[in-house]
Amino acid sequence: MSEILVGEYLFRRLKEIGIETIFGVPGDYELSLLDLVPKVDLKWVGTPNELVGAYAADGYAREKGAGALVTTFGPGELSALCGIGGAFCELVPILHIVGYPTSQAQASGKILHHTLGDLSYDHYVKMSGQMSSATAILKDARTAASEIDRVLNDMLYHSQPGYIGIAEDVTYSKIPASTLDKKIVRTLPENNPDVETKVVKEIIRHLESAKSPIIMVDGGAARGSWEKFVGGLVDALKVPFFTTILGKGAVDEQNPRYGGSYGGVGSLPSVVRAVEDSDCILWLGNLPSDFNTGMFSEHVKTSTIIDFQRFFIKIGDAKHDAKIVHVLPKLISEIKSNNNLTTRQSDVQLARPPKVSMPKGIGQDWLWDRLSQFLQPGDLIVSETGTSQVGIQLTTYPTGTKAWTQAVYGSIGYAAGAAIGLSIAAKEMGTFKRMILVTGDGSLQLTVQAFSMLNRHGIVPVVFILNNLGYTVERYFNGWEAQYNDVPMWDYSALFRAFAPEIKVGAFKVNTAADLDSLLSNKEFQTATYPQCVDMIMDPKDAPKILKGVFEAKAKEIAAMKATRT
Amino acid sequence: MSEILVGEYLFRRLKEIGIETIFGVPGDYELSLLDLVPKVDLKWVGTPNELVGAYAADGYAREKGAGALVTTFGPGELSALCGIGGAFCELVPILHIVGYPTSQAQASGKILHHTLGDLSYDHYVKMSGQMSSATAILKDARTAASEIDRVLNDMLYHSQPGYIGIAEDVTYSKIPASTLDKKIVRTLPENNPDVETKVVKEIIRHLESAKSPIIMVDGGAARGSWEKFVGGLVDALKVPFFTTILGKGAVDEQNPRYGGSYGGVGSLPSVVRAVEDSDCILWLGNLPSDFNTGMFSEHVKTSTIIDFQRFFIKIGDAKHDAKIVHVLPKLISEIKSNNNLTTRQSDVQLARPPKVSMPKGIGQDWLWDRLSQFLQPGDLIVSETGTSQVGIQLTTYPTGTKAWTQAVYGSIGYAAGAAIGLSIAAKEMGTFKRMILVTGDGSLQLTVQAFSMLNRHGIVPVVFILNNLGYTVERYFNGWEAQYNDVPMWDYSALFRAFAPEIKVGAFKVNTAADLDSLLSNKEFQTATYPQCVDMIMDPKDAPKILKGVFEAKAKEIAAMKATRT
Repeated sequence: MSEILVGEYLFRRLKEIGIETIFGVPGDYELSLLDLVPKVDLKWVGTPNELVGAYAADGYAREKGAGALVTTFGPGELSALCGIGGAFCELVPILHIVGYPTSQAQASGKILHHTLGDLSYDHYVKMSGQMSSATAILKDARTAASEIDRVLNDMLYHSQPGYIGIAEDVTYSKIPASTLDKKIVRTLPENNPDVETKVVKEIIRHLESAKSPIIMVDGGAARGSWEKFVGGLVDALKVPFFTTILGKGAVDEQNPRYGGSYGGVGSLPSVVRAVEDSDCILWLGNLPSDFNTGMFSEHVKTSTIIDFQRFFIKIGDAKHDAKIVHVLPKLISEIKSNNNLTTRQSDVQLARPPKVSMPKGIGQDWLWDRLSQFLQPGDLIVSETGTSQVGIQLTTYPTGTKAWTQAVYGSIGYAAGAAIGLSIAAKEMGTFKRMILVTGDGSLQLTVQAFSMLNRHGIVPVVFILNNLGYTVERYFNGWEAQYNDVPMWDYSALFRAFAPEIKVGAFKVNTAADLDSLLSNKEFQTATYPQCVDMIMDPKDAPKILKGVFEAKAKEIAAMKATRT
Repeated sequence: MSEILVGEYLFRRLKEIGIETIFGVPGDYELSLLDLVPKVDLKWVGTPNELVGAYAADGYAREKGAGALVTTFGPGELSALCGIGGAFCELVPILHIVGYPTSQAQASGKILHHTLGDLSYDHYVKMSGQMSSATAILKDARTAASEIDRVLNDMLYHSQPGYIGIAEDVTYSKIPASTLDKKIVRTLPENNPDVETKVVKEIIRHLESAKSPIIMVDGGAARGSWEKFVGGLVDALKVPFFTTILGKGAVDEQNPRYGGSYGGVGSLPSVVRAVEDSDCILWLGNLPSDFNTGMFSEHVKTSTIIDFQRFFIKIGDAKHDAKIVHVLPKLISEIKSNNNLTTRQSDVQLARPPKVSMPKGIGQDWLWDRLSQFLQPGDLIVSETGTSQVGIQLTTYPTGTKAWTQAVYGSIGYAAGAAIGLSIAAKEMGTFKRMILVTGDGSLQLTVQAFSMLNRHGIVPVVFILNNLGYTVERYFNGWEAQYNDVPMWDYSALFRAFAPEIKVGAFKVNTAADLDSLLSNKEFQTATYPQCVDMIMDPKDAPKILKGVFEAKAKEIAAMKATRT
């Protein structure tokens, strides 16, 4: 009977679900596991630290449907938790593999490094259990295969992180190769056909009777799993469509029916009118979190929403057991064969964001508009929480771009790490052209060492740094002049070079809109095949005009709370 | 009746227990709390990320007896956990203050950023609960003061991290100022006088009958609390004394009775003989973890050990309820008045580490010897887990130095962050002269942004970087040539400058022992009052000769495990 090692089994399962690259930081409890990576033709990409590794795995998983991260017991896994939390929150399936001390060592009663010193080995899995769809500590080779499968199946079903702890002795235990025969379930179960038919019919009925239907492309319900249907839907149902912060980048914005980004008071008045006056909204992956709704400043009647979720479709207040990934293709085909819908005209009035004339400094309103012309088909765009994420709503993306941001969890530092994983995934999928990372000086404080990877691995990034001396969104919230909202001034061009001294990079520092405009117009800059970064010196107190309303709502709340109490 | 805000109450309590500086990263759930920092005359030191912040708070607490870290709910607190875990393991009291959403927001049923998206607010405190001596979420102003006191008292009693979650609305609630009247308990309760007398008598009896007594200065039992007595003990009891990896830096090594560092096979043969042949070892803060014992290669009979712990003294196999901090001064005074002990001669033979002649490259054996002459009285030394931490055991420190390392938890990246907190604490205590940070390229991958702080805050560091292309200790364990043990080459001199471009720094790259020798002999380098770093290019496969035995033990274990199974 043919046998394989448990460690090899684990890695073969990862390949089976589409993972080709594993991210992580080596630690002595997992070194021998890592020896097996090349044996199964996987690629190991070491990351500077575990937080960057978790973000990279998250980015990778958003593109490829699943990602994997290997860290060491204790310090390693703990340092990844912020990244895992974000993945749990935003439905990104990452398998977190943690190298544990051998069972003999655990049973020895001796104090091992990376433990809490109390001879207990279950603290960390309990912690990760709070933000994993399933966890397993592999202790017995006989059940290892079924445990691995359980975690992977659960992770893919819920589209959330799984956790597997594996010790060297288990890694190198042999199990029958036939355990691989039964496959991991990579797709969600089909809908009940009767329910599905009823739901699709009901949606069609709503669309037929609606006067001003629209589509809202949001980012919930594991966007990566259903966004492939969005183009088909907007092409079939010829109504205006909009994106949210989370959904932006999932649909072609050059389509004349694209109406722009919606987020309550953070949207253009024409968008607010179109959305809030619509009598029927197909809301794909509705995720009404604070950052994704202009701090809950949206005024949309629930009765107008057809809410597409991972496990249900909610029409008005009726929830149906049907999954977005299976409903969307059926719905598209029903629309296509429905004359009433394919020939209708929408009476929604659309308006593009106003053109902004060039200011002296790099003003936010001008910047986001200017970026629209700089971007190219094929760009993969990641924007960071903060002014980048909200500001870029005013940029219109070219056809064939894709974009991601982490707006629900909102962990600053995410974008730089995610950009690595997204790029590597896109390279594996053959879709990679250029990585556009838009981040800020405040966010780079946390994960600047990601530069070390963006400069390598054949990634061709253009990194735009909004250098405005600290946490500008926080200034708007509280502490306009507060020292705690400042960050020290770094020389980003020098950092970008110093993290990869052996590689040709372009590093630019620009102070004025005219200089930035001329750089963005430069042919070599536009077509460079080497990494570039642009350090943009900006006013710490500037933000896009229409977004100030969002910040001010929160600021007023804090101020009122302080005023009544002091 | 005079009233104060709960937030102010919390900060006043921190001042009361000796904290003058709070570390952390601002987040919008805690901004208004941070407004109160200057009001109570505390200092806020923002850190690039939460991991560096936690390490800084740990370093600060080791020097000052307590530290504090403020992070934001979710991503912020999670990113600090690795630092908190190390503090829990090594008995360092850090108060982790986490800014929570207001109780109104929590009750709103809306999805807030930084949550896991499931409307639950207790995931994170459950996680931190695994590595805190006490936790509290302040929800009600009426119990806030007593909850804060409970956590602080518990934290100081156990000398381990505490966790307090505080929302803005609670922060700005008023409570009677008189709640401050009852003080926080900063010292451990006195020993039972009868037990204490008996224990001291018993120790004296053992010392009197011993032929070859020695003192082992280890690092457990919250070293910071008792190390002030070590000088008195070695002066009173004129016997040879030794240090462990954790204890090194707590005692004057220029004392002729200092015998060197002990860690099983990782020690000089003369040290092994002296320690393992001793018939009575006063073992202060015994912490027999793997890294602290040459991977359990120590052969000391338990019957010879008098084990001084935080809450007990163990003589042979008898455990007595008496605390090291109270027993040590009594013991010293008993020894001083005991003629038998003060006049005795020890027959232990001591030997200093052999002199090493200068090699061509920067060999490890030579380096650690050479550093002994470079160090100066007043230096505060931090060494990183890995070859730095074990190699520096071969360095002899001048009088008046102090040194720390995190050898039980062993989280790489710790040293760079801890150096910040240790330096700031020493400055506040008026003892700061110079920070010597010895770290490696593998470790800097994780927390290199700490450079941004080492270059500021008036810290005058000399940063020695063992640049050996990756994880050398791990190479010894497994993967001698493995790609996963490599790290990308960074330009450390350029990084050191780029993180503080406005500050004069010295940045050197040296390739040979002769060049390093000449740099270390340079007067300006020795006396510089600005930050300096030395990038030392070293052989990836070199390690101190006597330490190879330690690594090899672990390597053999892994190899044997793999061999029997494949």
